[in-house]
Amino acid sequence: MGYSVAPLERLVDQFERLPGIGRKTAQRLAYYVLSQPADYAAGFANALKEAKEKVHNCSVCYNFTDSDVCPICSDVKRDRSTICVVESPKDVAAFERTREYNGLYHVLHGLISPIDGVGPDQLYIKELLHRLSGDGVKEVIMATNPTTEGEATAMYIGRLLKPLGVKVTRLAYGIPVGGNLEFADEVTLYRALQGRSEL
Amino acid sequence: MGYSVAPLERLVDQFERLPGIGRKTAQRLAYYVLSQPADYAAGFANALKEAKEKVHNCSVCYNFTDSDVCPICSDVKRDRSTICVVESPKDVAAFERTREYNGLYHVLHGLISPIDGVGPDQLYIKELLHRLSGDGVKEVIMATNPTTEGEATAMYIGRLLKPLGVKVTRLAYGIPVGGNLEFADEVTLYRALQGRSEL
Repeated sequence: MGYSVAPLERLVDQFERLPGIGRKTAQRLAYYVLSQPADYAAGFANALKEAKEKVHNCSVCYNFTDSDVCPICSDVKRDRSTICVVESPKDVAAFERTREYNGLYHVLHGLISPIDGVGPDQLYIKELLHRLSGDGVKEVIMATNPTTEGEATAMYIGRLLKPLGVKVTRLAYGIPVGGNLEFADEVTLYRALQGRSEL
Repeated sequence: MGYSVAPLERLVDQFERLPGIGRKTAQRLAYYVLSQPADYAAGFANALKEAKEKVHNCSVCYNFTDSDVCPICSDVKRDRSTICVVESPKDVAAFERTREYNGLYHVLHGLISPIDGVGPDQLYIKELLHRLSGDGVKEVIMATNPTTEGEATAMYIGRLLKPLGVKVTRLAYGIPVGGNLEFADEVTLYRALQGRSEL
């Protein structure tokens, strides 16, 4: 008495792979797509492929961009003496929404996590050191999440940078401990920036 | 100081159009897609297009299928004398999961709703009448949701079918299994009392 439509099931499977989407929600979303005009599915499919094809890492800060150097790194009005180090491109977007930070960024694309087998070599740490060797960077703000991995990564990079004579600071605990940068409101993020302290 | 990556924003927009997905969740999902290997985005895009291209309405019951007549309508082991009328293909999937119903279905693809400008002509009601004119259908179960629109649609179709000499039934109202009397509303409790059966 089984009943299933293979192309529909394949679409449900794809939705279910998304974080936070369970089987029932995936089914609801797939049925919604089928209930819409054909140009919606086509547009969605196109947006998925285009985003993955055109968006890559900035060759300077490793943030997502569709140009070689991202608009932040190529913006002459930004303060090139400060680099804010974050875990992921999401975090750059979060800081940009505060409209209070005018320096540059460096995206690690992960955190040091021995449990998950992620060591310093898998992150863009060498690239950060390379950036510091050249231009006049005066301060590096460690803006990783206030979690165990975030703290450990901040400490590790802090220790690497100290001998280079650059000031290394850490976001203030304006962010609730155990929380996530992505969900912090603008004011909290701004306070965290203001209250940053030296590592 | 604005910062946005156009292809990424377009993907966020597409996710945000899905029901129950807000801006922040849409961003999280889009960033997730970008963090995955390229074949994920390609596979997802393909599943979207393929589902919309290959899945269409069954020419008999109007349920979703990728063949001309759906597997349920073409299954010779199913009871052809009973038709269960539902609002949407989702409801067919729900009944099939019970593994207790062995008749056929008819999907209306909506409910009569004057407020939303949906009249009987926009639903597959004529097609239901056409099915009854031919083969030996003995019973039609009105299985629309117990909402105002669902009730009105069931009443409307019931009145159309009565003169054809076919038995028209309605799903039982009652307390959900595993539910609690304390939280049942008065109307549901009253209906549960009315529909009581001998143990």
